[in-house]
Amino acid sequence: MSKVIKGGTIVTADRQFAGDILIEDGKIAAIGDNLTGDEVIDAEGAYVIPGGIDPHTHLEMPFMGTTADETFESGTWAAATGGTTMLVDFCLPGPDGSIKNAINDWHRKSAPQICSDIGYHMAITGWNESIFNEMKDAVDMGVNSFKHFMAYKGALMVEDDEMYASFSRCKELGALPMVHAENGDIIQELQQKYLAEGITGPEGHAFSRPPELEGEAANRAIMIADAVGTPLYIVHVSCEQAHEAIRRARQKGHRVYGEPLIQFLTLDESEYFNKSWEHAARRVMSPPFRSKAHQDGLWAGLSAGSLQVVATDHCAFGTEKKKMGLNDFTQIPNGTGGLEDRLAVLWTTGVETGRITPEEFVAVTSTNIAKILNIYPQKGALVPGADADIVVWDPKISKTISANSQKSIIDYNVFEGFEVTAQARHTLSRGDVIWSWGKNSAPQPGRGRFVPRPAFSSAGTALSRWKALNTPRKVERDPMNIPSGI
Amino acid sequence: MSKVIKGGTIVTADRQFAGDILIEDGKIAAIGDNLTGDEVIDAEGAYVIPGGIDPHTHLEMPFMGTTADETFESGTWAAATGGTTMLVDFCLPGPDGSIKNAINDWHRKSAPQICSDIGYHMAITGWNESIFNEMKDAVDMGVNSFKHFMAYKGALMVEDDEMYASFSRCKELGALPMVHAENGDIIQELQQKYLAEGITGPEGHAFSRPPELEGEAANRAIMIADAVGTPLYIVHVSCEQAHEAIRRARQKGHRVYGEPLIQFLTLDESEYFNKSWEHAARRVMSPPFRSKAHQDGLWAGLSAGSLQVVATDHCAFGTEKKKMGLNDFTQIPNGTGGLEDRLAVLWTTGVETGRITPEEFVAVTSTNIAKILNIYPQKGALVPGADADIVVWDPKISKTISANSQKSIIDYNVFEGFEVTAQARHTLSRGDVIWSWGKNSAPQPGRGRFVPRPAFSSAGTALSRWKALNTPRKVERDPMNIPSGI
Amino acid sequence: MSKVIKGGTIVTADRQFAGDILIEDGKIAAIGDNLTGDEVIDAEGAYVIPGGIDPHTHLEMPFMGTTADETFESGTWAAATGGTTMLVDFCLPGPDGSIKNAINDWHRKSAPQICSDIGYHMAITGWNESIFNEMKDAVDMGVNSFKHFMAYKGALMVEDDEMYASFSRCKELGALPMVHAENGDIIQELQQKYLAEGITGPEGHAFSRPPELEGEAANRAIMIADAVGTPLYIVHVSCEQAHEAIRRARQKGHRVYGEPLIQFLTLDESEYFNKSWEHAARRVMSPPFRSKAHQDGLWAGLSAGSLQVVATDHCAFGTEKKKMGLNDFTQIPNGTGGLEDRLAVLWTTGVETGRITPEEFVAVTSTNIAKILNIYPQKGALVPGADADIVVWDPKISKTISANSQKSIIDYNVFEGFEVTAQARHTLSRGDVIWSWGKNSAPQPGRGRFVPRPAFSSAGTALSRWKALNTPRKVERDPMNIPSGI
Amino acid sequence: MSKVIKGGTIVTADRQFAGDILIEDGKIAAIGDNLTGDEVIDAEGAYVIPGGIDPHTHLEMPFMGTTADETFESGTWAAATGGTTMLVDFCLPGPDGSIKNAINDWHRKSAPQICSDIGYHMAITGWNESIFNEMKDAVDMGVNSFKHFMAYKGALMVEDDEMYASFSRCKELGALPMVHAENGDIIQELQQKYLAEGITGPEGHAFSRPPELEGEAANRAIMIADAVGTPLYIVHVSCEQAHEAIRRARQKGHRVYGEPLIQFLTLDESEYFNKSWEHAARRVMSPPFRSKAHQDGLWAGLSAGSLQVVATDHCAFGTEKKKMGLNDFTQIPNGTGGLEDRLAVLWTTGVETGRITPEEFVAVTSTNIAKILNIYPQKGALVPGADADIVVWDPKISKTISANSQKSIIDYNVFEGFEVTAQARHTLSRGDVIWSWGKNSAPQPGRGRFVPRPAFSSAGTALSRWKALNTPRKVERDPMNIPSGI
Ligand SMILES: [Zn+2]
Ligand SMILES: [Zn+2]
Ligand SMILES: [Zn+2]
Ligand SMILES: [Zn+2]
Ligand SMILES: [Zn+2]
Ligand SMILES: [Zn+2]
Ligand SMILES: [Zn+2]
Ligand SMILES: [Zn+2]
Repeated sequence: MSKVIKGGTIVTADRQFAGDILIEDGKIAAIGDNLTGDEVIDAEGAYVIPGGIDPHTHLEMPFMGTTADETFESGTWAAATGGTTMLVDFCLPGPDGSIKNAINDWHRKSAPQICSDIGYHMAITGWNESIFNEMKDAVDMGVNSFKHFMAYKGALMVEDDEMYASFSRCKELGALPMVHAENGDIIQELQQKYLAEGITGPEGHAFSRPPELEGEAANRAIMIADAVGTPLYIVHVSCEQAHEAIRRARQKGHRVYGEPLIQFLTLDESEYFNKSWEHAARRVMSPPFRSKAHQDGLWAGLSAGSLQVVATDHCAFGTEKKKMGLNDFTQIPNGTGGLEDRLAVLWTTGVETGRITPEEFVAVTSTNIAKILNIYPQKGALVPGADADIVVWDPKISKTISANSQKSIIDYNVFEGFEVTAQARHTLSRGDVIWSWGKNSAPQPGRGRFVPRPAFSSAGTALSRWKALNTPRKVERDPMNIPSGI
Repeated sequence: MSKVIKGGTIVTADRQFAGDILIEDGKIAAIGDNLTGDEVIDAEGAYVIPGGIDPHTHLEMPFMGTTADETFESGTWAAATGGTTMLVDFCLPGPDGSIKNAINDWHRKSAPQICSDIGYHMAITGWNESIFNEMKDAVDMGVNSFKHFMAYKGALMVEDDEMYASFSRCKELGALPMVHAENGDIIQELQQKYLAEGITGPEGHAFSRPPELEGEAANRAIMIADAVGTPLYIVHVSCEQAHEAIRRARQKGHRVYGEPLIQFLTLDESEYFNKSWEHAARRVMSPPFRSKAHQDGLWAGLSAGSLQVVATDHCAFGTEKKKMGLNDFTQIPNGTGGLEDRLAVLWTTGVETGRITPEEFVAVTSTNIAKILNIYPQKGALVPGADADIVVWDPKISKTISANSQKSIIDYNVFEGFEVTAQARHTLSRGDVIWSWGKNSAPQPGRGRFVPRPAFSSAGTALSRWKALNTPRKVERDPMNIPSGI
Repeated sequence: MSKVIKGGTIVTADRQFAGDILIEDGKIAAIGDNLTGDEVIDAEGAYVIPGGIDPHTHLEMPFMGTTADETFESGTWAAATGGTTMLVDFCLPGPDGSIKNAINDWHRKSAPQICSDIGYHMAITGWNESIFNEMKDAVDMGVNSFKHFMAYKGALMVEDDEMYASFSRCKELGALPMVHAENGDIIQELQQKYLAEGITGPEGHAFSRPPELEGEAANRAIMIADAVGTPLYIVHVSCEQAHEAIRRARQKGHRVYGEPLIQFLTLDESEYFNKSWEHAARRVMSPPFRSKAHQDGLWAGLSAGSLQVVATDHCAFGTEKKKMGLNDFTQIPNGTGGLEDRLAVLWTTGVETGRITPEEFVAVTSTNIAKILNIYPQKGALVPGADADIVVWDPKISKTISANSQKSIIDYNVFEGFEVTAQARHTLSRGDVIWSWGKNSAPQPGRGRFVPRPAFSSAGTALSRWKALNTPRKVERDPMNIPSGI
Repeated sequence: MSKVIKGGTIVTADRQFAGDILIEDGKIAAIGDNLTGDEVIDAEGAYVIPGGIDPHTHLEMPFMGTTADETFESGTWAAATGGTTMLVDFCLPGPDGSIKNAINDWHRKSAPQICSDIGYHMAITGWNESIFNEMKDAVDMGVNSFKHFMAYKGALMVEDDEMYASFSRCKELGALPMVHAENGDIIQELQQKYLAEGITGPEGHAFSRPPELEGEAANRAIMIADAVGTPLYIVHVSCEQAHEAIRRARQKGHRVYGEPLIQFLTLDESEYFNKSWEHAARRVMSPPFRSKAHQDGLWAGLSAGSLQVVATDHCAFGTEKKKMGLNDFTQIPNGTGGLEDRLAVLWTTGVETGRITPEEFVAVTSTNIAKILNIYPQKGALVPGADADIVVWDPKISKTISANSQKSIIDYNVFEGFEVTAQARHTLSRGDVIWSWGKNSAPQPGRGRFVPRPAFSSAGTALSRWKALNTPRKVERDPMNIPSGI
């Protein structure tokens, strides 16, 4: 049964135009005028955009002695209602340290639950021969990106030589290294310092993770990636310091990508100084929100091209779990929400203000990450042959964000009270309408699929070529010019 | 009669994929596998790319007391043989100062000659009410970009207040201001200084136009565009100084575009120090070639996104005309060639080395400028409905560039002796194969068309919205708080 | 009769140490321990510093159809009570355009009035042969610095070629060019725009002079100075944009100096949005106060060495004169006060907070400008042989700044209400105690002297040498390699 | 017995003037005209400058399995003949790890040998309670600076948390942390990579230590120092990357100092590509010489104030010792010479060309480091009371540098063949003429003294004050707003 999305203004990363979209077998069959199909989806007065991709979520993630509340079902469902049709979740090795087992474990948990499609990044939290070997398995299993934590000392953190080794392996495999960039050593020192000074509340979280520590780590990871000769993706860029390091590298021809979060574009550190402990603790995530002074630069990065992706780092711990850190901010589980609201908040604060164009909105919410993760145009595009992950985006539906009315299962929302001016009228996942505004749509757990991603992106291939051409060469010396031994 | 380009690897600004392209009525009718048509164009082993757009040419331009040699016929033809299917030429007002008359004059000259499509930028070389009025006529006639010369004092140069006025008019009309950025006042001072010191040869041209003068003017034009609230396009960016100004502006959210020339990416100022006067004089153009130290930054700008377009500033004066400046470098007609070789040289030095990806090659030779000039996807794209300006780009045809074998009618080539590793196997203009490698193709003057361009690009519209939201507001004061007059 | 300043901590630009200072014949005769003299000046518990030099004042200056209120008497007196023992005032040519006459006129006005020493900068407000010639007269008369206004179009403003010519003349004469850096063309456009929009109040002054216009002009002046090969001094640096241009130049080896004002370090643009017209109008000066975001960078510039001097641009128009612009902000006389409070405000906000060291305080209030203006160590130093312009600076005298209690004759103070924590206990001018705290000191008009300044500073000489070594050289060509004429 | 240096031009960091210097009891007794003394030292036609201070030497240092050849005697003697009257040598803990013992050991070795004065920096090569405690002993013993190696993994290298701990201890003690900034982890990876590729020659040394690794480490150390709130001194700055990190920090108000070496200002990496293994191996030091592109920036840093000190890192291993690395560049002892030639090379390439002024020459060779190390004006100054470490610097004595004629005991000289245009006519150490040109002066081992340095410099004190004022504050929350436990 075919469907036609009719009457909308199609917006892609490169243009806007009036047109219909014909969908067959879960894929886009045609784009054009006056298309017909068995079923008509009304897009009159709305934009038609590629479904959002949120490349940074932690669903049901075991972390800091507890587990993130958002499930694969609730997460993919909440995302879909907000216009996001694919999540890329972070997969962590279990106690056995096996990558393969971890991926299979993630499949086991996600498969029966997910309402729309998903992919994984694999975390590299140490280094040994088995990890080296299993990285190939991960790539073979469709996971082409590996995350490295430069923070969480004593837990997930890796050292510089481990990053060098892992990045080198990524390069061989055509995979993309990613980093959580914060200096874990110094965070630990500052945590101890502020706790010793009696600062135990959530504000201590922000104080112990100043932006300089993020900038330093970003800069260091970039240097290592450059020494290896691989592109690098820096998750959750929150501050000018990290952005500056990224820009500096890009201006030398290095292929570095930066991902600000929607939170960092719109919220600031004053949240941690709120007189309500709960208000503050619910915002605890790493890196923390920054001062307002950082926001203009992040926005400019999106239009200038020095930052490419807006994500959420959705890792939702409910208030009860936050209370684990009641007397010690270092024990507050790190993470907050956003996957349901990302598109609406970005549209309202970005497109409606003219900071970014509608095309750039599509680029940073969907297309760019699809290219970076090498699944474009299967995802992130509106072209014949692409998966019909499509959103009819209605710029006339406004709402006030509230935990009371959200689909996410956590008990608060960091955007509580925000007025947004646009919403998904319909969300399609591979051609199925899984959400329609005001129609009592229900989640369909298990219909989502894992999307394997091939290795060797075009950018990585080009960089490898350049590095190979410019590798240092041995100086050939006449034995006459070499002294005999000592 | 339909045509199919079969068996190639299609490369666009956003991806590479195997596919055929069906052409009907001069437009792309379909892209897919196993397409059939009346005629087959073989693309086996080759890339299929959007025809190049060179947005910076001066054909038959009257300048410095003479006229550029390259005609509309020879220029469009030479370009087509090199894979470029559209030129945007600079239109200068004649003695009557009328914009409308100038455009009609350009039509009169170009229409019978052009072998492929063309557009114009209009030069604003002064300011008065009639220019203000006729700018609207230009936009109505399909010219949506206006060029301002900050150099050529006493001739084309405009002052800051004139730029402010013209940029403001551009903003109203939804047109794009462009600048030739060099400080004309200081150039004139330095010319006089070096002539007085007895430096009369072509090296004096380079000495009297140091990169700092270009950086200064770029910076100034950017400030004016920002004060007005309009995007800005900076032609022929040759140096780090101008690039730095562009980057700085973009990082504040300002929409500024920069256009390095293929010459600046690959040739350097040592050409002006050549012991042969003719060799040196043939390279005289403004801005001049720079020291090698500038090149890495320009290349990085292309991959980082801080520079968007590679052009040529093709303005070819033959050796005889260059001799006008035999005893005085300031009298050497400024300009050189490149439109025939741009793609091959960029491919060889950029894609083959891994400095840029094939996708970026397409972006900077075609797609980006089509977007900037608001004719995308009619031009610069491979999508159904687009003009079938397509090149079958063969990465296995190598040749040595030489004036002896070129199509351009000038008697030298600044790339003389360059080995290039790729060439256009076929060039199609609106579906017509106008050039095939080794097939004795002949120019078809008069088949080209003028391409009108609409106003109000997406980027300009967004910027206007942002500026409107952030415009300063009057402080309302109680009359009690305002003293009575004096 | 000799004097000894006893028991203080001597602070110079390079160190702090306990010591006495012996003064004879108006000069420092010795510095050491246990010195004796005919008279003892108590410095117990205080710092002993070189008298402040304010290199940027406009006393009794005719401007904008009126004349600045502060007289040479009241100005030098108020300065002295605040610890400043030398002013460098801006001398403007009169209607006859003569530099020599202007200097003599300034002498005529200042000589009978000044309570402490003075020097002049000469303004270059146009260009012709007589100005060229008279610049030498100025240098011979002890004026080694020339100011150029890039703003005040139609009045004081000069064009780029005029600056090039004047800077070149400065270089020849070993004099220092200075600029007021704001783009006068664009200011005029913005003034007209905001007036047309009905913004007639003082906030329009700030709106029509955004920091980008200052940054642009600074950048342009720097380029011109570099093309000429001369150092450059940029007065009243208010913003990051200008500071960035200065830093960028210095990092290329160019000798550029920047002078933030004490106002810009401590006050911000919100003053212009005050609901009281008078409050706002009294703060109107050019450049205007900027947003707080600019302040951190200026402060850092003082400790980093990228900015050298803290001045005041004291040009005090009383409230009645400000009312000339009651209905049109462009008619509000530009200028405000500060020379009395500069040291105390800088000490309190800079030294007391640790932003700058006491040594840096001395450097930026006195020593650096003495070096730049080539009168060091006659002024700005505490060494034997130097003029005994000395301040006993008491870090325990606090006061609240108020127009009610100030010595300046204007009827307001932009620092009204500031609590300062230090004051001059004694101020000596060439050995005379001209001010003692709480002792009813009275002004002594006529005792001050004009301080002639020699040309050819060390920095300028070095730069000239470097430029001479690196000047472009003619390419010698064999006649065989030059074609015969056309 | 008094001495007078007569007839010279005195040059200090702040001025030049004609004057005589009277010396009594090893100290400067007076500076003035027509001074008389028992003995006259002729300075006619020469400059009189403070003796050079080389703050970076490794005399007789045990390293990489051998010991640096230059002895305390030959080193201080060679330095003195070149105008350098004080060295600050790096003291390394011995096998027992004791700081106190190491200092005493250094005293034992140096005391009988040194011909002029000396000080030490203490190396911190690990972290434990005894190091924490003994750092105080070091300060009490007159060592107020502590060096941290971020390279030499497995040997001297310290980790980030160790740096944080040690920097914090430095801050408490008022001492200055210093770093050798290169990323030791990545160096080791690159060493293994290039060795595995068969690159065993000295060029591998350069390849395995690219400038990005130095920039990264500098940036990281700066971040740590900023988190602690202490000034930082970065030794042997060789490249733009490290300089950029320093500038960026300084422009935020952070007090970071950078020390380029005279080698880095004048020599480049092509030395490592020399066809003679010995030539190349003799230049092996860390960081290595860089490409010429780095030099302009370092020079500009000296005049702009972003770099403060020119040193040598004199650590001379003779050719026989270099051969330890004949088959493996990682075994070539790292280090080269320079202390004898630093002033002459800097004068010739810096002052004679106009890149720096004579005053800046004095500042970067002597005065600045004396201030940074808190021994100013005992050293680094020409003022009454200062140690009479004075050089009569003759700008008319030229010579060709050669190992054949040098005083240093190593068997080569990296400046071999350089023509220098100035030399020390006389060198005085605490009033003793220890070297006169052409007079067969002989070394006087044992006359030199250790110079203890006090803690708490003015800059450090100011920074501590600023950090204390701006330290984060606890958010006080009403118990009502804190949930009860979980
Ligand atoms: Zn993270
Ligand atoms: Zn995360
Ligand atoms: Zn041009
Ligand atoms: Zn042109
Ligand atoms: Zn001014
Ligand atoms: Zn002024
Ligand atoms: Zn070292
Ligand atoms: Zn060393």
